[in-house]
Amino acid sequence: MTNTTIAVLGTGRIGKMHAELIDRQVPALDLHSVFDVFADSAHAVAADLGCDVAESAEHVMASDVDAVAICTSTDTHVDLVVAAAEAGKAIFLEKPISLNLAEVDRALAAVEMAGVPLQIGFNRRFDPAHAAVQQAVANGSVGDVHMVRITSRDPAPPPIEYIKVSGGIFNDMTIHDFDMARFVTGSEVVQVYATAAVRVDPAIGEAGDVDTAVVVLTHENEAITTIDNSRQAVYGYDQRVEVFGSGGMAVSENPRSHTAEIHGPDGTHLSNIPYFFLERYIPSYLAEWSAFVDGLKSGQMPVTGKDGRAPLAIGMAAARSAKEGRPVRVDEVA
Amino acid sequence: MTNTTIAVLGTGRIGKMHAELIDRQVPALDLHSVFDVFADSAHAVAADLGCDVAESAEHVMASDVDAVAICTSTDTHVDLVVAAAEAGKAIFLEKPISLNLAEVDRALAAVEMAGVPLQIGFNRRFDPAHAAVQQAVANGSVGDVHMVRITSRDPAPPPIEYIKVSGGIFNDMTIHDFDMARFVTGSEVVQVYATAAVRVDPAIGEAGDVDTAVVVLTHENEAITTIDNSRQAVYGYDQRVEVFGSGGMAVSENPRSHTAEIHGPDGTHLSNIPYFFLERYIPSYLAEWSAFVDGLKSGQMPVTGKDGRAPLAIGMAAARSAKEGRPVRVDEVA
Amino acid sequence: MTNTTIAVLGTGRIGKMHAELIDRQVPALDLHSVFDVFADSAHAVAADLGCDVAESAEHVMASDVDAVAICTSTDTHVDLVVAAAEAGKAIFLEKPISLNLAEVDRALAAVEMAGVPLQIGFNRRFDPAHAAVQQAVANGSVGDVHMVRITSRDPAPPPIEYIKVSGGIFNDMTIHDFDMARFVTGSEVVQVYATAAVRVDPAIGEAGDVDTAVVVLTHENEAITTIDNSRQAVYGYDQRVEVFGSGGMAVSENPRSHTAEIHGPDGTHLSNIPYFFLERYIPSYLAEWSAFVDGLKSGQMPVTGKDGRAPLAIGMAAARSAKEGRPVRVDEVA
Amino acid sequence: MTNTTIAVLGTGRIGKMHAELIDRQVPALDLHSVFDVFADSAHAVAADLGCDVAESAEHVMASDVDAVAICTSTDTHVDLVVAAAEAGKAIFLEKPISLNLAEVDRALAAVEMAGVPLQIGFNRRFDPAHAAVQQAVANGSVGDVHMVRITSRDPAPPPIEYIKVSGGIFNDMTIHDFDMARFVTGSEVVQVYATAAVRVDPAIGEAGDVDTAVVVLTHENEAITTIDNSRQAVYGYDQRVEVFGSGGMAVSENPRSHTAEIHGPDGTHLSNIPYFFLERYIPSYLAEWSAFVDGLKSGQMPVTGKDGRAPLAIGMAAARSAKEGRPVRVDEVA
Repeated sequence: MTNTTIAVLGTGRIGKMHAELIDRQVPALDLHSVFDVFADSAHAVAADLGCDVAESAEHVMASDVDAVAICTSTDTHVDLVVAAAEAGKAIFLEKPISLNLAEVDRALAAVEMAGVPLQIGFNRRFDPAHAAVQQAVANGSVGDVHMVRITSRDPAPPPIEYIKVSGGIFNDMTIHDFDMARFVTGSEVVQVYATAAVRVDPAIGEAGDVDTAVVVLTHENEAITTIDNSRQAVYGYDQRVEVFGSGGMAVSENPRSHTAEIHGPDGTHLSNIPYFFLERYIPSYLAEWSAFVDGLKSGQMPVTGKDGRAPLAIGMAAARSAKEGRPVRVDEVA
Repeated sequence: MTNTTIAVLGTGRIGKMHAELIDRQVPALDLHSVFDVFADSAHAVAADLGCDVAESAEHVMASDVDAVAICTSTDTHVDLVVAAAEAGKAIFLEKPISLNLAEVDRALAAVEMAGVPLQIGFNRRFDPAHAAVQQAVANGSVGDVHMVRITSRDPAPPPIEYIKVSGGIFNDMTIHDFDMARFVTGSEVVQVYATAAVRVDPAIGEAGDVDTAVVVLTHENEAITTIDNSRQAVYGYDQRVEVFGSGGMAVSENPRSHTAEIHGPDGTHLSNIPYFFLERYIPSYLAEWSAFVDGLKSGQMPVTGKDGRAPLAIGMAAARSAKEGRPVRVDEVA
Repeated sequence: MTNTTIAVLGTGRIGKMHAELIDRQVPALDLHSVFDVFADSAHAVAADLGCDVAESAEHVMASDVDAVAICTSTDTHVDLVVAAAEAGKAIFLEKPISLNLAEVDRALAAVEMAGVPLQIGFNRRFDPAHAAVQQAVANGSVGDVHMVRITSRDPAPPPIEYIKVSGGIFNDMTIHDFDMARFVTGSEVVQVYATAAVRVDPAIGEAGDVDTAVVVLTHENEAITTIDNSRQAVYGYDQRVEVFGSGGMAVSENPRSHTAEIHGPDGTHLSNIPYFFLERYIPSYLAEWSAFVDGLKSGQMPVTGKDGRAPLAIGMAAARSAKEGRPVRVDEVA
Repeated sequence: MTNTTIAVLGTGRIGKMHAELIDRQVPALDLHSVFDVFADSAHAVAADLGCDVAESAEHVMASDVDAVAICTSTDTHVDLVVAAAEAGKAIFLEKPISLNLAEVDRALAAVEMAGVPLQIGFNRRFDPAHAAVQQAVANGSVGDVHMVRITSRDPAPPPIEYIKVSGGIFNDMTIHDFDMARFVTGSEVVQVYATAAVRVDPAIGEAGDVDTAVVVLTHENEAITTIDNSRQAVYGYDQRVEVFGSGGMAVSENPRSHTAEIHGPDGTHLSNIPYFFLERYIPSYLAEWSAFVDGLKSGQMPVTGKDGRAPLAIGMAAARSAKEGRPVRVDEVA
């Protein structure tokens, strides 16, 4: 039996990371080639990993590679998904699918038509701690879910240039949390109330975005999820999920950089929380690829196109809620 | 120098506790007498503690006692405050002052007129962990406050008979959290969004109340507070406060019944969270009395009449918000 | 049914504490009287608690009091035990029984002859966390016990005057740990190796004692216990017990003053460990009295005369081991 | 500037790991070739990593490779070190250097004569938590070191065949702890007391070894180190270091597999401790290679030949102590 071959499209920060992980730590996948519109970027990654550079995305689609990982800029996602689907490739697609729901639907229709496997890159589902929280719900330890709290705070804001094209905090940051809310409750979101502010950096406000937000979701099963986001938690990358229910509570706490403790007359000092998302989430990315490989075998991908679409609709409702100062039903926007 | 003498009015659960604490663990206060409309209750407490039983509240007010602790049922609070103020007594008053803002104002006017000291019984401010969170804000460790999270979940619902007369979850449970939000931010609340459900027991809904609630507060200083309440956390009395700001984060976590840890092949088991509010908050009640004594000396009471009034207005806005499904400004209701 | 009456002999630090606890927080015991050779001390305690002052220990023994708590200086213990036994009183005796084994045996013989209940004041057995560790052994969670680690470090050394009469670190501090080793293993100690040093204060060495010690015990059941002691842990009163066995590990960790955590760019700061033994062990003293009351009913005292004697013999072996630089069998000294 | 090239000798479990780490995660080193007396093992590793297979160790020494990592069986270490030194290679050597001190000295003499860099593979010094403990000592946070506690327990015993040739628990397991004791105290060991037992598996005793041991070390600076070892901790790979001194305490606690916590009526459940040494110590191996690279540049290797020799002498003293039942000075054996 031969390995699955895969090409990585887009060798920016996230694409480069995926290429490296696939090449070095995913034995069941063979890195076939990489492509980027910035050829230098693709060549640097290829040189490091010893794989080919594809001349174009079209060349990749025309090749005999089994799968593609689409890690390019968001505005190219849908066309690449359609092309990959038509070429019969298995698809791994970084989030978001698109910022436009009609475009999302065009991509998903192509995938469905072609019958190719598709997995959306919501890596946090594969974080061991978050996954254990979801498992605690699934195995009944938490009972009926009554309330969920998700904290998701970046250590520092991205460059203002990025903010301007990110689609806004709800599409850029909170989208992961909308996915997490659906994942741990197993229930769709029906209503959204969002309140937001510019507290970290006025330049973010001038760029038309916010940097501090609280979002309350009401789920079909009556569970209430509260999400809080900040673009800047000076103490590190704060990522916690808490599910409360009739039977108990499951929480994923932040890890620490290491486990040393210093005890002095004034108390005890612990090491800090990892600062960078790669430090925190590398195990989740590896588990994500393992799940992709398993999904190819079983025919059941763990994060589907529907899972990619739903958070976009919730994000639109959140943006409208924050703007209009009222709760917004998801079916108003989607 | 002689001690301050104090009479306790109302010897139900909370009044009895205060009488015992005062008698046994507050050296600067002498328990003078107790009173309750159920004379048997007052006599039992008096026999245990070796103090007098007052014939009536009027007798207390006419006596030479220095201070009164008003722990009677809510509907009697205002008249007793007015009487105590007119009699020149220092007043400790259990929350809530009243469920009616006009009545609250009548009580506070009498206190102001008489110039007597008044302290409202928001004991959680004196919990060592919550107080340390507030201190971290006050000393600048947290920087500007951006977001607050308060979790307040009872281990089990009260009797339905109590639910029916409690004034609703926002006046009964969340009132402590509204106070905590003002305390740790040092900023007034201007807007409230509340969403609630009946998840624990349908009988609570039939009694006209809810048992699960999420409330989002917007403060004058732009901080956003999220409160979540449940009438039933099966794992214990869950009481946490988290303040996030430009400089860091301060959190009060739940204590445990004891510090033993059992390590086995399947992981580590820790003891449970204290189940009963008295187990958790006894140190806060003691510190509250210590602050009362200090306040009598300094002339500055630590929890003022204004602090007693504000949460009631927030609670009214919350109730309206939950009913009307929209954010409500506090100045709409007060 | 009437309560058990009890007299407290000795109103120094520990006797005063017992008198207060009995009076205020042990409903099943009535504090009858107190006695101290320093009459002022006894009168101050009696005035505070509203009990009688006995003229002499003899008067106590001649009275109709049901029980006595012997909290006087160690050199008076044996005579008082003998007198109390002959008077038919139930006896609570602070540790150590005596520093002389022949005297210990004289006391225990008198108790046995009289058939009166006797409980030795090894309060740490009743600490909720240490007790949970012992329970984990008793219920099989730890399996066969292979190794025990006991850390017992005071926050600061006692006055040099006390050091001079304390009987040495092994009789004064480590005696609690010898008891704990027997308690959690359920097995007698057969051999002791001790090594010690003067590291905290040269004056302690000049007074003929040490301030830093490591003791290795070999138990009958082959378990090995390691104890480490210091007269000065600047970060607080460090009291931990760890039992390791074929089935797992049970540990009692140090509690903290409160549960607030401050998170900043450099890491997380926790509150300190309680500094004073009373802060840490009050719950254990209360549970000790509860066990005394239960023991009077059941006829089975939880900490027996044998439990009081064994640690003294281990301490003698430890002192000889530290002096001679070799392991010493307990049966060499006792 | 070109990278340092390195050959790995020995492709058993540890050598294979080093080859993989060097190839994939140490950018400053180029994996030149691998060698093993079992050619199939070397070929498998080479095929996976895309490097050469050396025909013999002699071929490696004769090649132009800059450095060698000696990961072969202990009995071949000294000859390989001598050969590498004579060939002018920088040397990374897995512990122990040899079980024979005269042989150790022959190896170190060859290294000194040749003036080549040598680093001994005591990886635990590079574990982030243990290193933070040592840093706390080095920067004065702990003050003068009074006592050290090292817990080192394997999750399960190795095969009996391995036990038979391991040189005994003190040379095989405790050697790491002897190194840690020297590392965190910065002080040589002058005396050893060891007590040991067979508690895990009688077959270990029949093979002439023990599986449970407690060792007390006295350092030149008067610090006392206690080490406890077990061949089987069913709850995971238990690796802790605690340094106590005049200024405070620094501790490295065990990490957990993940940070989820499940709260229920009976308490809180945490995930287990990593079971396998590779899970726990991979970051330390990476940091070890980084230190090797830095050492080549600075000319100061972080773990020297002397550091490799000292624990062997301590281990001999420990073995003699356990056999003879008395403390043994290190200068008796070395």
